[in-house]
Amino acid sequence: MTASVSVVEPDITKLLDHLARQPALARRLGGARDQWSAREIGDGNVNLVFAVHGPAGAVCVKQAPPYVRAAGPSWPLTPQRVLFEHRALVEHRRHAGPYVPEPLHVDPKEHLLTVEYLEGHTVMRGGLTAGACYPHFAGQVARYLARTLFFTSDLALPAGRKRELVSLFEANTAMCQIMEDMVFTEVFLPHPRNRWTSPELDEDVERLQRDTELKLAVSRLKQRYLTSRDALLHGDLHTGSIMVSEDSLGVIDQEFACYGPMGFDLGTLLAHLLIAYFAAGARGPDRAGQQGWLLSTVEQVWDGFRTHFTELWRHHADGDGYPPALFTGAATAALEAERQRYLDELFTETLGFCGAEIIRRVVGFARPADFTTVTDPAHRAAAERRSLALARALTAAPTAYRSAADLTAAARNS
Amino acid sequence: MTASVSVVEPDITKLLDHLARQPALARRLGGARDQWSAREIGDGNVNLVFAVHGPAGAVCVKQAPPYVRAAGPSWPLTPQRVLFEHRALVEHRRHAGPYVPEPLHVDPKEHLLTVEYLEGHTVMRGGLTAGACYPHFAGQVARYLARTLFFTSDLALPAGRKRELVSLFEANTAMCQIMEDMVFTEVFLPHPRNRWTSPELDEDVERLQRDTELKLAVSRLKQRYLTSRDALLHGDLHTGSIMVSEDSLGVIDQEFACYGPMGFDLGTLLAHLLIAYFAAGARGPDRAGQQGWLLSTVEQVWDGFRTHFTELWRHHADGDGYPPALFTGAATAALEAERQRYLDELFTETLGFCGAEIIRRVVGFARPADFTTVTDPAHRAAAERRSLALARALTAAPTAYRSAADLTAAARNS
Repeated sequence: MTASVSVVEPDITKLLDHLARQPALARRLGGARDQWSAREIGDGNVNLVFAVHGPAGAVCVKQAPPYVRAAGPSWPLTPQRVLFEHRALVEHRRHAGPYVPEPLHVDPKEHLLTVEYLEGHTVMRGGLTAGACYPHFAGQVARYLARTLFFTSDLALPAGRKRELVSLFEANTAMCQIMEDMVFTEVFLPHPRNRWTSPELDEDVERLQRDTELKLAVSRLKQRYLTSRDALLHGDLHTGSIMVSEDSLGVIDQEFACYGPMGFDLGTLLAHLLIAYFAAGARGPDRAGQQGWLLSTVEQVWDGFRTHFTELWRHHADGDGYPPALFTGAATAALEAERQRYLDELFTETLGFCGAEIIRRVVGFARPADFTTVTDPAHRAAAERRSLALARALTAAPTAYRSAADLTAAARNS
Repeated sequence: MTASVSVVEPDITKLLDHLARQPALARRLGGARDQWSAREIGDGNVNLVFAVHGPAGAVCVKQAPPYVRAAGPSWPLTPQRVLFEHRALVEHRRHAGPYVPEPLHVDPKEHLLTVEYLEGHTVMRGGLTAGACYPHFAGQVARYLARTLFFTSDLALPAGRKRELVSLFEANTAMCQIMEDMVFTEVFLPHPRNRWTSPELDEDVERLQRDTELKLAVSRLKQRYLTSRDALLHGDLHTGSIMVSEDSLGVIDQEFACYGPMGFDLGTLLAHLLIAYFAAGARGPDRAGQQGWLLSTVEQVWDGFRTHFTELWRHHADGDGYPPALFTGAATAALEAERQRYLDELFTETLGFCGAEIIRRVVGFARPADFTTVTDPAHRAAAERRSLALARALTAAPTAYRSAADLTAAARNS
């Protein structure tokens, strides 16, 4: 989707007025108000985003209009979403500080959220589309995922504190509803919001919408999304929600944050790495190196996550889940085996969500730039068809894959 | 536990003053305040309960002291629990009216909850201990369970409404903590609150606390209790929470209500029917008839629940889970198969929770009158040992049982 909302001068004036009223923000920018400049930098589907520079520094301001930015006022959406984004930033930064920008201010009336400006970072999806590789990415994002998911789960938190957090995010229903509809439902029905490479994929889409086994598998995943309160999720962890530089990473756009199944965040990220892989294939043979890097990144993200998460569980099990006092002496080995069983199950869940995310990005409303910038429809359709084939297999039969290496082998053969 | 809290006259005076201040309650009692009489009728572990009679009618008033009634002030507990009980009564009565007493008034400052007085009903556990059978019970409680669990789940509710309800009950942390500690943790450790028939069961308890496989299975169930938000549970559905007459049933004591796994309510109820079965065996051969009735009740409760729940899902699937629009035409048969798969999984989960509940009632703080009124320790220990053997098998290997008939066969052979 290309944004169709134009930013007019009065918006910028209002924005600078807002910053001038907050002494801490004004100090960060430095100088006088007329030395500040703002420009719209957002390319997401949901909000407007401004970079504001002053003589001493910069901040990033998100403005949530009362509708979906990519659709315009015909699709209303509560601007309260910035409050949930702010809460999620606070909570995740507590555990994964280096990878989460600092929230500086939130204004619940004007629906403005000001966060640290990530100097020298670009949106990862843009970099990937242009052919870039990020050698430090896998290690950093694996750590981010392990720490945000573990430390907000019952493995780390006393139940009372965890229930309090669940309750805080439970009210983010409007944003969750978007996922419930767009990931798990609309693409499997004829729906006016769906779009795909047509006529090339018309038959594929028809077959998808008749695929009862797949629709049951997706409905089971939706049920997990609706009923599981495992950890505080980012909720929309694609490569457009990640800012990268050569050696660092900042995860942004937490407005879909909610308690849910860990596999949802993990699967979404792997889905977008695989989408980038298939899209790179459509751009020609000079992308072979990037393709190799993308698949090794898929493996390193999962394997790194698994290693970090296991380590955290071994050494920071301060929650009410699996009380360590029950597993002392000889029983510690059994608990370690249980950790590995837990992570095997999480891998299966992750693959299911990964497939569902790929499908909705080929057939649904929010198609990613990785595909839409492939201008030749035949090449694009071929890449999308390979994505769909892998996705269908992952979601309908996830237990066929025992490791991240199995997953990347399947991607290569798809 | 026998209650150790004495009720003094000033409490009664305060109670009647409270009722006199509520015009609707005063009207229901009729006459003048000095024509009203109150007596303590509670035998639960948690609250004080009074029946108040007037010339025109009666009401039941629950008072939540700021501690656990059965333990006294040394075990503090938030009196806010009456608010959650009130909310759960309202919500469950909406769906299972005939089986849930009408909530009449709640006072959040004095922590008093007034509900419909169930004329002619007795606490089911007392009746069972005395040898009674209730031929209508299974059909009624199966309906109660199917309707309260289905209509508060994502199968029946739009996600926004369901998330709102989850949030309402998430704050009932103090009561949930009791379950988290007492059902899933304390009995598997040497803990000062544990008690059992000693010395007869000393070795059994020691073996239990060394049983790593069992402790892992119980920890998995605890994880389900901590992370699942499937339906609004009663939260403590034993036979002491059920009032019965010859032909009707009222479920009371909803102060442990929370969103959780459906198998927790189902398993708790089956556990107490099985406890009654084993305890009846310890009372002598004249209880053979009641024992037969109890096991056929176990089968009818599960089978009836399964039938009702399936019917509700077929005809009232108004929620966001398993969108019916995805399964039309030939796919309706696949959806029906999925319903049966869902219920098979729920049966497995139910057996796991059933076993955990039996174990904590033999070894934990809150031992039921079914056992404690068997005065001969050898007979009591024998019945408790049979219960533990069945419970261990149910929790550690629940998939060995495919039907309620398998379960009752195992109880007979235990």
